[in-house]
Amino acid sequence: MTNMTNKIKTYKKDFEFSYTGSAYSTVELLKTKPEFVEAVYIRPSFTDNCGLTDLCFTKNIPVICSDKAFGLVNQKENSYVIGVFRKYEDDLSLVEPHIALVNPSDMGNLGTIIRTAAGFNIKNVAIILPAADLFNPKTIRASMGALFRVNCEFFAGFAEYISKYREHKLFPFMLDGKISPDDCNPCLFSLVFGNEATGLDQSFMNIGQTVKIPLSDRVDSFNLGVAAGIGMYIFAVKNRLL
Amino acid sequence: MTNMTNKIKTYKKDFEFSYTGSAYSTVELLKTKPEFVEAVYIRPSFTDNCGLTDLCFTKNIPVICSDKAFGLVNQKENSYVIGVFRKYEDDLSLVEPHIALVNPSDMGNLGTIIRTAAGFNIKNVAIILPAADLFNPKTIRASMGALFRVNCEFFAGFAEYISKYREHKLFPFMLDGKISPDDCNPCLFSLVFGNEATGLDQSFMNIGQTVKIPLSDRVDSFNLGVAAGIGMYIFAVKNRLL
Repeated sequence: MTNMTNKIKTYKKDFEFSYTGSAYSTVELLKTKPEFVEAVYIRPSFTDNCGLTDLCFTKNIPVICSDKAFGLVNQKENSYVIGVFRKYEDDLSLVEPHIALVNPSDMGNLGTIIRTAAGFNIKNVAIILPAADLFNPKTIRASMGALFRVNCEFFAGFAEYISKYREHKLFPFMLDGKISPDDCNPCLFSLVFGNEATGLDQSFMNIGQTVKIPLSDRVDSFNLGVAAGIGMYIFAVKNRLL
Repeated sequence: MTNMTNKIKTYKKDFEFSYTGSAYSTVELLKTKPEFVEAVYIRPSFTDNCGLTDLCFTKNIPVICSDKAFGLVNQKENSYVIGVFRKYEDDLSLVEPHIALVNPSDMGNLGTIIRTAAGFNIKNVAIILPAADLFNPKTIRASMGALFRVNCEFFAGFAEYISKYREHKLFPFMLDGKISPDDCNPCLFSLVFGNEATGLDQSFMNIGQTVKIPLSDRVDSFNLGVAAGIGMYIFAVKNRLL
């Protein structure tokens, strides 16, 4: 217990553990990754109407009731629950579709894309480093806890990703992509999205089937989370994932 | 000039003017709404490779070169250009499609939705109050300046909106909507989206044709900006707006 309390402090990227900040995302964590949960903190004023404490009891995870811990973590928004968990890494599925994010830099976008992927039953996300911190509480919050329901694997470069997952047909989304997502055929797909500011570099023009979401001349691009959401929707419908 | 310098201070919602914070969005402002621009501030270190200063000269708008102004506005990100403009309100088109946002609460979402709308040639956005501040520099930044290329009109309530624009077929997006957006027919549409946390209330079930974006049981909803992006994409393609 003393050990746990020492651990509770404002999150930093190099920590071996991180925090959830809401009851909802903590329940997601407990349901899907209980083996990595070290403790759950609740405020004395927390009203448990989602079965959180029973879930902790069943999984033999300590529940610590303390206001003080919340001040130490210094979460911005009003939070009544903190789940402390050890970071982990998944392997992606060889036979299910993927999203591949090349150097995503914004935690909000990263979490939002993972939430959307989970919503479309796309359960595997490749993250090409450097990238926004997957386990930062902000990313977890943007994902609404969906992060724990999706496999995420890190790669030092895109070559490392494609050498491990050779069966996926690659669809880089680019402003000068060749076809509309509506014209892509069903298959074992990997949708590839670049960085918010720079997109995918020109070398991706020679990889797989490049795709362009049609856009007017009123803007020069879409928000990354929106573009990825549109791409995922079309591929999920076409491949009957829902 | 003295008058202008007095105006330069950290933005507040009740100001009659606001600021752009990037060269790109200032050029968008100058091209589309020059009559509302009072001045443009640039840093001495600003390199104009987008024709900004020539545009100001042509439109007879003063360009003030000063580092001090940037400290007074207290913009968070590194900014080299500030455009000062008076707030304005548009009327929506009676004959073009609309987006109607009921009580959007997040400036990032609001700006992102406007950017997406502009990208799909949906040039009219109804905003039902209360709502996030359209003219806050954060909203402008999230819109990447597309805000100036889209008509935005405010309404005290949804009834006020539909009493003014009677010809639009309404499509409320709801978690218990009746049909998929792919099953909607081309028409003069208004896509209606609710608040981030609460969505649209049940009274919208009896309005127009309710729509549900299919989603798995892994999440309980999509991010508002993503849901609106998917809806706009499908309706834009179906109605050949691109």
